Amino acid sequence: MPQISKKAEAMPESPIRKLMPYATAAKAAGKRVLHLNIGQPDIKTPEAVLDTIKNMDLEVIEYSNSEGFAPYREKLSAYYRSHGIPVETDHIMITTGGSEALTFAMMTCFNPGDEVIIPEPYYANYSGFATMAGVKVVPITAKIEDGFALPPVAEFEKLINERTRGIVLCNPGNPTGYLYTRDEVKAIGSLAQKHDLYIMADEVYREFCYDEASPFSTYNLEDVDDNVVLIDSVSKRYSMCGARIGALITRNVQVRAAAMKFAQARLSPPTLGQIAAEAALDTPQSYFDGVIEEYVARRNFAVKVLNDIPGVRCPMPRGAFYCIAELPIDDSDKFCQWLLESFSLDNTTVMLAPATGFYITPGLGKQEVRLAYVLEQKDLELAMRIIAAALEAYPGKVALTETHSASTSL
Amino acid sequence: MPQISKKAEAMPESPIRKLMPYATAAKAAGKRVLHLNIGQPDIKTPEAVLDTIKNMDLEVIEYSNSEGFAPYREKLSAYYRSHGIPVETDHIMITTGGSEALTFAMMTCFNPGDEVIIPEPYYANYSGFATMAGVKVVPITAKIEDGFALPPVAEFEKLINERTRGIVLCNPGNPTGYLYTRDEVKAIGSLAQKHDLYIMADEVYREFCYDEASPFSTYNLEDVDDNVVLIDSVSKRYSMCGARIGALITRNVQVRAAAMKFAQARLSPPTLGQIAAEAALDTPQSYFDGVIEEYVARRNFAVKVLNDIPGVRCPMPRGAFYCIAELPIDDSDKFCQWLLESFSLDNTTVMLAPATGFYITPGLGKQEVRLAYVLEQKDLELAMRIIAAALEAYPGKVALTETHSASTSL
Repeated sequence: MPQISKKAEAMPESPIRKLMPYATAAKAAGKRVLHLNIGQPDIKTPEAVLDTIKNMDLEVIEYSNSEGFAPYREKLSAYYRSHGIPVETDHIMITTGGSEALTFAMMTCFNPGDEVIIPEPYYANYSGFATMAGVKVVPITAKIEDGFALPPVAEFEKLINERTRGIVLCNPGNPTGYLYTRDEVKAIGSLAQKHDLYIMADEVYREFCYDEASPFSTYNLEDVDDNVVLIDSVSKRYSMCGARIGALITRNVQVRAAAMKFAQARLSPPTLGQIAAEAALDTPQSYFDGVIEEYVARRNFAVKVLNDIPGVRCPMPRGAFYCIAELPIDDSDKFCQWLLESFSLDNTTVMLAPATGFYITPGLGKQEVRLAYVLEQKDLELAMRIIAAALEAYPGKVALTETHSASTSL
Repeated sequence: MPQISKKAEAMPESPIRKLMPYATAAKAAGKRVLHLNIGQPDIKTPEAVLDTIKNMDLEVIEYSNSEGFAPYREKLSAYYRSHGIPVETDHIMITTGGSEALTFAMMTCFNPGDEVIIPEPYYANYSGFATMAGVKVVPITAKIEDGFALPPVAEFEKLINERTRGIVLCNPGNPTGYLYTRDEVKAIGSLAQKHDLYIMADEVYREFCYDEASPFSTYNLEDVDDNVVLIDSVSKRYSMCGARIGALITRNVQVRAAAMKFAQARLSPPTLGQIAAEAALDTPQSYFDGVIEEYVARRNFAVKVLNDIPGVRCPMPRGAFYCIAELPIDDSDKFCQWLLESFSLDNTTVMLAPATGFYITPGLGKQEVRLAYVLEQKDLELAMRIIAAALEAYPGKVALTETHSASTSL
């Protein structure tokens, strides 16, 4: 039998999806499972999007241009400009989700063996894209006691060597929900300029900022025009994850030309998804207002309940729809599996994402979980009651003092 | 300014799309351009597919499973079995087009520096996928004077060394239209078994076989269960290239598990495309009968006209919707560009694909072009008149005797 490649062996399994068999088994046994583990919002896709698909008058579902349909790209550049982000149509290549944009960006910008610095905890699939490109991820740890703020620039400097080629920044952040301040983004810009690094900026949660905060885009940084590669996606913005439409955006002409060669090899991004995504650009602000109101209510509720549980610490996120909670437990992987296998309340249990999957420094995240508050209020209330009860019943719970000392020692 | 990667530099430009600027200029100058250069059929997508999309009752366009929707995979396995190809549901991973299936397959099966043998001329994007995986393509030349039949096994044996890990086979073939016989496919199977090589079999043109020929799938080979990786796509079959739905199919459990890690990193194949592709499985045989009748008429016409032009040789293809023609010209790249820049008949010209893009052995294909007979009869007739007149007028035409000696010396 022929062997698989070293890269295939090195590819990480999705930490978010690896507990799926236990969830499947729980459901097969008749339990209801509330999914707080994934970023699949329950928010409805805008009506205009669904209507446009239903009223398509295509006779042939043809390829689009490799860089995406021209009218969609033009309209998309207007969207960015209306958000104060100076993106020209030429800067935009439409991709098959943000995932493909990241894959193309990593392959275009980095050589095998290059190093890229990523603040952890970070979106686990960055590790997969880095592995595909043969790139080594160098983590810099953001701490829960700091609310996951950007680690000090001096800490970055310590990690930069002759192999360092880039920094990946997710803002607002998945899994932390942390919104970087203007000063933090500018600090990254200065680092990139000083060491001539790429900044790969995943800004897919742009619309999801709370408490009247607004995001500062890396595309508005000065003096790093050729360093910034913006990654975007319509998945979360319009609750249309399945459309698989994203974008790779950069002023760097060389990066664009090279990324186009990868794009041409796969011919075209999805045509139906592009039709849907173009229609989505007409989504009125009232849709977002409603969505944000809903997420703020959920966030406020979830974070309060969590912090009220003895031994639990959960920083208040200001963006996206995730939070990280530190729990008085021995091991988040065991706890999340136990929730599915051995615990229920009203014949219902909760699926969470162990935070171990979002750190690559060994041992980190063992007392943390990520919650995606993507369920409506009623289910969210039940989920929180289940978590509180589970933390009472869990055989691997640790005493409060242990927790605090453990978290401090991390 | 940070530099792009060596891989990005090495990525080939699409030879099919590189003439696009000349076509755009011709159109801007008011000329009509008949596209025989690309595999975008003019055939209508089946009604049932378009109706299904229009009647979707989704409220949220959600992710699917990373391996694709289960009902679609089940129905797809039934499709294969109805074609005598023993594919189980578990063998199937749905991908974003055949392109992604090839990317995942190459990354899963091959290490950087590994060699893969591909009969040339071959689908140019194989080079791109190989470059992405760091794999070296070793070409074995199929000759126009043999109608592009499989080169002798002894020639393959000469190319196999300790770095050889696989063979890519496209059947029926793009760009040649050649349909490998059962014996030829079995010869590849024996080679793969003897040297423990992967066979990556691109069988996306399965339905397009003519003259009562039928394709023999590599999946029906014996004794190489773990070696065969089948690549498929709905793009051509149902004329829905823009749906971006393909499949990676294998009995090899290790390859499946590894490919799933790549699939999880990109979350899910397109949801709307999968809905369309599942509906397409209900397409009645009468649709294919009509399509095949149309393609046979076009093929018979185009190949006859071409062979009637002095100095032109065009083997009769038995599959797909392409043919390769040898022309009495100095350089196919120059000729194709000249057609767009400097020639017209009735203010109309033709865009062809220079065959140089389908060979990697330097110098080959300079007197050959690929034609995709994807235009309706009336336009095809005009296109053929244009080609005949252009070959009279082209400044770089070569004398008949030159052509024949040149082609023999290839």
